[in-house]
Amino acid sequence: MSGKFAFRLLATDGGARRGEIATPRGEIRTPAFMPVGTAGTVKAMYLDQVRALGTDIILGNTYHLMLRPGAERVARLGGLHGFARWPHPILTDSGGYQVMSLAALRKIDERGVVFQSHIDGSTHELTPERSMEIQRLLGADIRMQLDHLVPLPSSEAEIEAAMQLSLRWAERSLAAFRSGEGPAAFGIVQGGDVPRLRVASASALRAMDFDGYAVGGLAVGEPQATMLAMLEVTVPELPADKPRYLMGVGTPDDILASVARGVDMFDCVLPTRAGRHGLAYTRFGKINLKNARHAEDPRPLDPQSACPAARDYSRAYLHHLLRANEMLGAMLLTWSNLAYYQSLMAGIRASIEAARYADFAAETREGWARGDLPPVG
Amino acid sequence: MSGKFAFRLLATDGGARRGEIATPRGEIRTPAFMPVGTAGTVKAMYLDQVRALGTDIILGNTYHLMLRPGAERVARLGGLHGFARWPHPILTDSGGYQVMSLAALRKIDERGVVFQSHIDGSTHELTPERSMEIQRLLGADIRMQLDHLVPLPSSEAEIEAAMQLSLRWAERSLAAFRSGEGPAAFGIVQGGDVPRLRVASASALRAMDFDGYAVGGLAVGEPQATMLAMLEVTVPELPADKPRYLMGVGTPDDILASVARGVDMFDCVLPTRAGRHGLAYTRFGKINLKNARHAEDPRPLDPQSACPAARDYSRAYLHHLLRANEMLGAMLLTWSNLAYYQSLMAGIRASIEAARYADFAAETREGWARGDLPPVG
Repeated sequence: MSGKFAFRLLATDGGARRGEIATPRGEIRTPAFMPVGTAGTVKAMYLDQVRALGTDIILGNTYHLMLRPGAERVARLGGLHGFARWPHPILTDSGGYQVMSLAALRKIDERGVVFQSHIDGSTHELTPERSMEIQRLLGADIRMQLDHLVPLPSSEAEIEAAMQLSLRWAERSLAAFRSGEGPAAFGIVQGGDVPRLRVASASALRAMDFDGYAVGGLAVGEPQATMLAMLEVTVPELPADKPRYLMGVGTPDDILASVARGVDMFDCVLPTRAGRHGLAYTRFGKINLKNARHAEDPRPLDPQSACPAARDYSRAYLHHLLRANEMLGAMLLTWSNLAYYQSLMAGIRASIEAARYADFAAETREGWARGDLPPVG
Repeated sequence: MSGKFAFRLLATDGGARRGEIATPRGEIRTPAFMPVGTAGTVKAMYLDQVRALGTDIILGNTYHLMLRPGAERVARLGGLHGFARWPHPILTDSGGYQVMSLAALRKIDERGVVFQSHIDGSTHELTPERSMEIQRLLGADIRMQLDHLVPLPSSEAEIEAAMQLSLRWAERSLAAFRSGEGPAAFGIVQGGDVPRLRVASASALRAMDFDGYAVGGLAVGEPQATMLAMLEVTVPELPADKPRYLMGVGTPDDILASVARGVDMFDCVLPTRAGRHGLAYTRFGKINLKNARHAEDPRPLDPQSACPAARDYSRAYLHHLLRANEMLGAMLLTWSNLAYYQSLMAGIRASIEAARYADFAAETREGWARGDLPPVG
């Protein structure tokens, strides 16, 4: 399974890139959106549906899977690919982000992090080496280094210390990765909202020669302008011949803006989480289907969508399901949202190939600005 | 849509009957199992999946739908068939059972019942006439009379009073039904666990000439033997040329036993509700997938099942999803359970046609008695 990872740049249009990542489990068309399969399932979806939407790769969460059902158990059951029945590429995160956001953190030091499970309070350790090992056990096609990040705003000294620790963990992660087998490992640029730290992190990671580079520690509540400014200083420091992954991003507009700045890969819980809460992402913008104005609306979310969830069910029915807290409401909205995200990515890819990305982005934003269909009657 | 309802008896084998109910929206092969679509959705399922399992008819709950989204609203949105996207037959209950089990009952008298919604506490009235009207608004292909039942055990006097009230409501229900249009209305035999009251109820209803006859007030916690004894005294009082529907039943064994006693139609929340709680119904019997013994079992629930949920996913994965409370666990188990129920019904129908129903029932029960696959390793 090693040695087959490769990134090929097919076209560029301004800063936007159209590429293809070859992996032993298949190709990933970029720019790519990776639906999040936290605990070995993209919530409320059959993975067959996720695939049929044009998904080339999904993301698995090391933190969740190491706690339940456990990495060794997943390995015995055929890895995450066999366990969850997804024979296509999978990227796993390092677990670091969820340790900070979900677990009760016990200790962080040079060696790694010690934390208590949010499920049963049991104590666990995550080091750069163990994270790589867990990701290998899960069978990930792309593994991420363990990193450390601080919330924004934080002091420059705190941000720098976390970034430097992340660089030392990057070295150890890469050594652990290279001592075994596996297709690819990505480093993660940190540095908070401080341009000089982002530049320093990116250039140090570049020297280590990872298979790809992620930009981490963004989309943590800062303004979009800050995120984009950080991308603008970071991306030029990254090699053109490796994929670039903006972690945890984002809204459709975040994606449009980040692709223009050279990002190739995204993951975000937004389409799935928002779907479970009744929020639909569409070419008309964001629609809250719990709103009473949909209660008698016989029209579908989007009559032109290729997704049955968006095209065939009335807004009134979706509204009813969401109000009644019926599982089918979450199933249909998640489906519709992922369909919209993947159709957006397909449009992005096609427009870069056609050298009209700026026009595509402008047209897409105009659609959102025009807003939803006029009220019925 | 009226005038097309007809029951045709195709074969009998002992007490078991193989039949076909023609309705304006399609045929119902009997013995039939009707998945319960409480609030306009068979929980955790796409209705396309429900149909593909061989389902000819689903059940809708008048009580739930009258409260949310409201019968008039459903009517404006194309009736339940259009609203939920199920163009095939639908049977609606009268609402009476849920009023007794879910609502805060305010008053029951000759006129009907007044109750408070379990959703928002609002006050509603259900009379035989209003129930028929609601079911007409929902677009039901088969409507049920409003009835009154008492829990078991109750005194014979209480049971008789409820049965007599149900008979008077049957007359009013039928008059309301006949004053409008619609394919079919069924009467409901009551009488608790008192044979002479069951006989009296059945023969009085028979004289009213409903399109079909339900047996109600059973499967409310009494022993199976009581339920079967009541069927044995009731069924001979019902006309052979009308379908017989045992309400709210039941386990696979209840169904086998009741078919042998001449029942043609069933509905039950068991396969869907049990699925959401991790209980699988299979040809090996009932399997609790939350049990730790499945945590590392790479085998599917049933490698010979035609249902992907039962055939393709490992027990270990299902166990994980259920332990992690992931929606996909409920989706897969519900799917697998309804598949098992519908394959059981298909087997029942084929064996009656082949005049080997008793053998089929015995073989099926032997499979359950042999129990689950042996543990791994």
